[in-house]
Amino acid sequence: MIRVGVIGCGYWGPNLVRVFNACDRTEMISLCDLDPDRVRRLLKNYPTIEGLTDPDAMMRRPDIDLIVIATPVGSHFDLARAAIEKGKHVLVEKPITERTEQARELIDLARRKGVLLAVDHTFLFTPAVEKMKELIDDGSVGRIQYIDSVRINLGLIQEEIDVIWDLAPHDLSIVDFLIDRVPRRVTATGGCHTAGGQVDVAYINLDYGDGLVANFHVNWLSPVKVRRMIFGGDRRMIIFDDLQNDEKIRVYDSGATAILDDNENRNGNTNGNGKRLKRIDYRVGDIWSPHLRRSEALTVEAEHIAAAIEDGVPLRADGEKGLRVIRILEACQQSLANDGERVFLERPVPAARTLVGAS
Amino acid sequence: MIRVGVIGCGYWGPNLVRVFNACDRTEMISLCDLDPDRVRRLLKNYPTIEGLTDPDAMMRRPDIDLIVIATPVGSHFDLARAAIEKGKHVLVEKPITERTEQARELIDLARRKGVLLAVDHTFLFTPAVEKMKELIDDGSVGRIQYIDSVRINLGLIQEEIDVIWDLAPHDLSIVDFLIDRVPRRVTATGGCHTAGGQVDVAYINLDYGDGLVANFHVNWLSPVKVRRMIFGGDRRMIIFDDLQNDEKIRVYDSGATAILDDNENRNGNTNGNGKRLKRIDYRVGDIWSPHLRRSEALTVEAEHIAAAIEDGVPLRADGEKGLRVIRILEACQQSLANDGERVFLERPVPAARTLVGAS
Amino acid sequence: MIRVGVIGCGYWGPNLVRVFNACDRTEMISLCDLDPDRVRRLLKNYPTIEGLTDPDAMMRRPDIDLIVIATPVGSHFDLARAAIEKGKHVLVEKPITERTEQARELIDLARRKGVLLAVDHTFLFTPAVEKMKELIDDGSVGRIQYIDSVRINLGLIQEEIDVIWDLAPHDLSIVDFLIDRVPRRVTATGGCHTAGGQVDVAYINLDYGDGLVANFHVNWLSPVKVRRMIFGGDRRMIIFDDLQNDEKIRVYDSGATAILDDNENRNGNTNGNGKRLKRIDYRVGDIWSPHLRRSEALTVEAEHIAAAIEDGVPLRADGEKGLRVIRILEACQQSLANDGERVFLERPVPAARTLVGAS
Amino acid sequence: MIRVGVIGCGYWGPNLVRVFNACDRTEMISLCDLDPDRVRRLLKNYPTIEGLTDPDAMMRRPDIDLIVIATPVGSHFDLARAAIEKGKHVLVEKPITERTEQARELIDLARRKGVLLAVDHTFLFTPAVEKMKELIDDGSVGRIQYIDSVRINLGLIQEEIDVIWDLAPHDLSIVDFLIDRVPRRVTATGGCHTAGGQVDVAYINLDYGDGLVANFHVNWLSPVKVRRMIFGGDRRMIIFDDLQNDEKIRVYDSGATAILDDNENRNGNTNGNGKRLKRIDYRVGDIWSPHLRRSEALTVEAEHIAAAIEDGVPLRADGEKGLRVIRILEACQQSLANDGERVFLERPVPAARTLVGAS
Repeated sequence: MIRVGVIGCGYWGPNLVRVFNACDRTEMISLCDLDPDRVRRLLKNYPTIEGLTDPDAMMRRPDIDLIVIATPVGSHFDLARAAIEKGKHVLVEKPITERTEQARELIDLARRKGVLLAVDHTFLFTPAVEKMKELIDDGSVGRIQYIDSVRINLGLIQEEIDVIWDLAPHDLSIVDFLIDRVPRRVTATGGCHTAGGQVDVAYINLDYGDGLVANFHVNWLSPVKVRRMIFGGDRRMIIFDDLQNDEKIRVYDSGATAILDDNENRNGNTNGNGKRLKRIDYRVGDIWSPHLRRSEALTVEAEHIAAAIEDGVPLRADGEKGLRVIRILEACQQSLANDGERVFLERPVPAARTLVGAS
Repeated sequence: MIRVGVIGCGYWGPNLVRVFNACDRTEMISLCDLDPDRVRRLLKNYPTIEGLTDPDAMMRRPDIDLIVIATPVGSHFDLARAAIEKGKHVLVEKPITERTEQARELIDLARRKGVLLAVDHTFLFTPAVEKMKELIDDGSVGRIQYIDSVRINLGLIQEEIDVIWDLAPHDLSIVDFLIDRVPRRVTATGGCHTAGGQVDVAYINLDYGDGLVANFHVNWLSPVKVRRMIFGGDRRMIIFDDLQNDEKIRVYDSGATAILDDNENRNGNTNGNGKRLKRIDYRVGDIWSPHLRRSEALTVEAEHIAAAIEDGVPLRADGEKGLRVIRILEACQQSLANDGERVFLERPVPAARTLVGAS
Repeated sequence: MIRVGVIGCGYWGPNLVRVFNACDRTEMISLCDLDPDRVRRLLKNYPTIEGLTDPDAMMRRPDIDLIVIATPVGSHFDLARAAIEKGKHVLVEKPITERTEQARELIDLARRKGVLLAVDHTFLFTPAVEKMKELIDDGSVGRIQYIDSVRINLGLIQEEIDVIWDLAPHDLSIVDFLIDRVPRRVTATGGCHTAGGQVDVAYINLDYGDGLVANFHVNWLSPVKVRRMIFGGDRRMIIFDDLQNDEKIRVYDSGATAILDDNENRNGNTNGNGKRLKRIDYRVGDIWSPHLRRSEALTVEAEHIAAAIEDGVPLRADGEKGLRVIRILEACQQSLANDGERVFLERPVPAARTLVGAS
Repeated sequence: MIRVGVIGCGYWGPNLVRVFNACDRTEMISLCDLDPDRVRRLLKNYPTIEGLTDPDAMMRRPDIDLIVIATPVGSHFDLARAAIEKGKHVLVEKPITERTEQARELIDLARRKGVLLAVDHTFLFTPAVEKMKELIDDGSVGRIQYIDSVRINLGLIQEEIDVIWDLAPHDLSIVDFLIDRVPRRVTATGGCHTAGGQVDVAYINLDYGDGLVANFHVNWLSPVKVRRMIFGGDRRMIIFDDLQNDEKIRVYDSGATAILDDNENRNGNTNGNGKRLKRIDYRVGDIWSPHLRRSEALTVEAEHIAAAIEDGVPLRADGEKGLRVIRILEACQQSLANDGERVFLERPVPAARTLVGAS
């Protein structure tokens, strides 16, 4: 039985307390918040759990195996480092830290201490994302050609962080999980429309160097709520609409294939490889909406964390994954601050090659 | 009665012949295509119109007032210049020319010759775009904060031009018409996924220098067809969905207003202007789908051209408008060729200012 | 302060306990269920409320003003009668009783005892239904011409009652509230598709005698969930889609008007009134989705009951309204049992007149 | 080569002329309308076809094999009889005749004369209906439990016929084709809301005697256009939405199965067969939208008629099918005229049996 302590009882913490309390392999031992009222309120429903207002007191308990950190991002690094140094496994809310070097330090520390460092990318445990992972990994979608993501709604304007740090981690973690690649180039543009506020509308554009582009629209000003991601492959396209009840995923069986002309003795526009495009064959097929399980992501995640700790199952979202996400967030910040200038995560590849995908 | 000749009887030309033939103020006199078969086929329905395979023959007819050019973009410049030099009014298909300097030359020439140079931005004459113009101009939408445009579908991959030149002129001309502004900064990214083909998926990002960003997704590879534009204003948001039959336009009456804290003696994050964001007031209201006329855009456009020629009504889409669109297209081309590097249409504004909108 | 006791702590009872506990004008005193486990579970959240397993014990408490009955329909009559005889105000779950004569007896008894008899038609307190009532009462919809209701989904097949008694009370109570009329003729048809089960698919058809028809589709076998009502008026049509989050109500501003020919000297088909139909004028207008409050229906209802008891505000759903609904349910039962034969709630009107509406 | 004459050049006739002219196996020879203007207009596009204003002249031509009758329903019988008597094959617009005995007479006459009598149920040749036929016939849908059809829109109010005769033939012919059964009982209710007009809103309810009910809503007063049919089977449900472009058919893989309790020694509600319903198992699965061909129904139909004439392929919609549809229409008329009274097409089955489906 894994004994769990949760630090941070604000918006998300109570959900973590609930699932780790309900999970058969974990036992909620202790919860902590600087605000004693939050602790008191939460303890009403869990009278047997210890309530603390000092995180150090939790760190010092030798019988706690896993510390879950659900505080604002500014405190993630210090709390996670303290817990890891005490030999605790750690699950940190996303984004894992404020800066990449902090995440790197936590990863190294956890490796040295032999504990797990997990980041709470909850979306990876939703039935929809798991189904997409399955469809991409088994080749059903084919080679991914473009990714388009829209997460817009009215509200939740925040003082401390901008719309990118608030909303994009969800989508970036999903994309990272599904395609398991690091973009080559990042740009972010946006605007701020509330005096004294943060950027509230933004676009992120990622280029992966072989024709794959990913674009993200995050927005706090839209009266219409949209949660939609498109994964376009050369075999099938997936649309993930998280606001649908019964058809969150739709799979479109269709694509386009270029037919090149081998008979090349006319004075044509030969593109690159010396062959002329003869025609495009379009294949259009069925649309399919797979039935999804009705499981709660967070419950599945709690069981997964337990299995990682006790059975050595590889973490779906470890520190490295958390780091990859904030590396992109940092690049976005940098691009935004430099008027949309490109930020290269690795050495730039010559431009001409970028645009020639399938050759 | 304005006597009209149409050059180019391919995909779009027959529509132009039809509406100029039906319009009360115009008379179709002559049509021309290099391909005699096309001419023959079209003449079947219009036995009284002259059919030509030599554009010069049309130019030489002194009794023709207006020459409509519906040929591939590569020939627009030469044909338009020849027509203008003969003193004809000209309506050119979009994009007006291949290069901005060509468009500039046509504009100057037309001015000197005292003839009209119109560009066929048909969308500007649709009931939906006219209604949006009305709602933006009368202040219903408020200050535009962001524009998001999606024009994606399967197919129509072309050899000569990429997906930006193929699809984006529609959306760029609509945005230009509705907000009547020139972007400060242009970036374009994309990918090519057919060997020997053109860029088939692309994103265009425009920054207007005061917090307004506009993003365009154009795509030849999507099995799902989408035609959707969002105009987010600080009073209302418009969604224009051109695939809807009965509700092409939906107006969302809602928005967010920042309430600043005047009492500023705490140690707060004061953003820029020294005041602290106190809270955001969200206003949510009705959704409204205005009834639109059922008129055909091209018919309205033909009447508009006639009124411009005979009554001096200002052209809705003159050479300048055509030039503004291809100026952005050229910048996109340049950005695409330079791996997404920013292209500034005017002198760059310091980055920090760009992101602070409402101050 | 109105002191409240709730009998029945199954599916719906806990919601009633919650709202009467939260309401400022009411005080939850006592709750009761034959099953002591249910009582125990519910008391955990309300440690100060008395828990009973004998309804009579609640009836005997002189300090209770209002007894809420949320038991299966079979026990409504006895419990309500007992409560009323003790001089308690009563709120009964729908359907009010199993038979119309029982409802009639409760109404009479409550009148004699000077207490209120309310029936829990919760839907009448939803923002959507309240908005529709407003639009119908202020003439915006015009004369109602047809009502179409669909309430279908998979599941909830029950042993004791058929799909009509399960689902139709919602829609019948909404229609009764909105148009405040009693149908003249009732038919019900349906089918049973589970061996040993109840009718699981059914259609109810109501005729109101002046051209107004109302049709209801209730269905336990549909994998697609639909909750949609149409109210067609001669000025506007309302669509109420309860599964929508943001646009539960849509108002279509359009209609058709007959233009009669006054010049009647040809040998025409004169219909009824001696005039010939000349043409139909169609008026099509805007579509409008009014913003709705976000209030919870049951909370509004609890306040309404309190206002009825203390301030004499007329009950929105009194015993008469409950009776009208089960009168139709009884007629449906009778029609179903007689192979869809018509059941007349009042004296039949000659058929010919039924079909001539506007004359 | 089958030589074809078309009588009636109003709304639908020109389409028939077009497809029989384009079909490889047929040759348009002659067309006829009482109105010489219509003939003249149509001949412009078909200068080689003979134009007539006297149907007898066409009947007399010995070289015509097939006469297509696209006149108002009142003249169908006389024209079809005359053509058949001259030994012509006949294709008649739907509804085949005004009265069932007329259809019966045409069927008998065609049999005696050895010619084909086809009725133009165009919908049967649409890719959507053909796909549904396939899914029902191969058992994918299972036993059909209910059919729900909605065909509503604004307009097209007619003087001569009511909304049932105008709209329902489409849906009735589709249902007849898909399930190939005759209903046992018919009721129709409706209302008229234009002074001097016809019934403009109506519901048809069909009972097939074994639990299958079919309900049809036809309506000229709805500002929202709906074309939707549901076929609920015990294995899958199909929704056919004819207004969708890309997903006209959606197949829902789900259903409910009754589990009976074999251990029957408690004092339970045993329903009919002595067993008690234990529980319902719900199966929910994928949703699937099969890709449909893009063929034009009328073109497919013309080829089918040719194949029936020349190759002996059985007619998909022969006189018997046409008769079955108008038999229901006649029953509807009778029910409407008698205030919704039931009309039995065959001997009535005892009511109790009707409601017990699966036993």
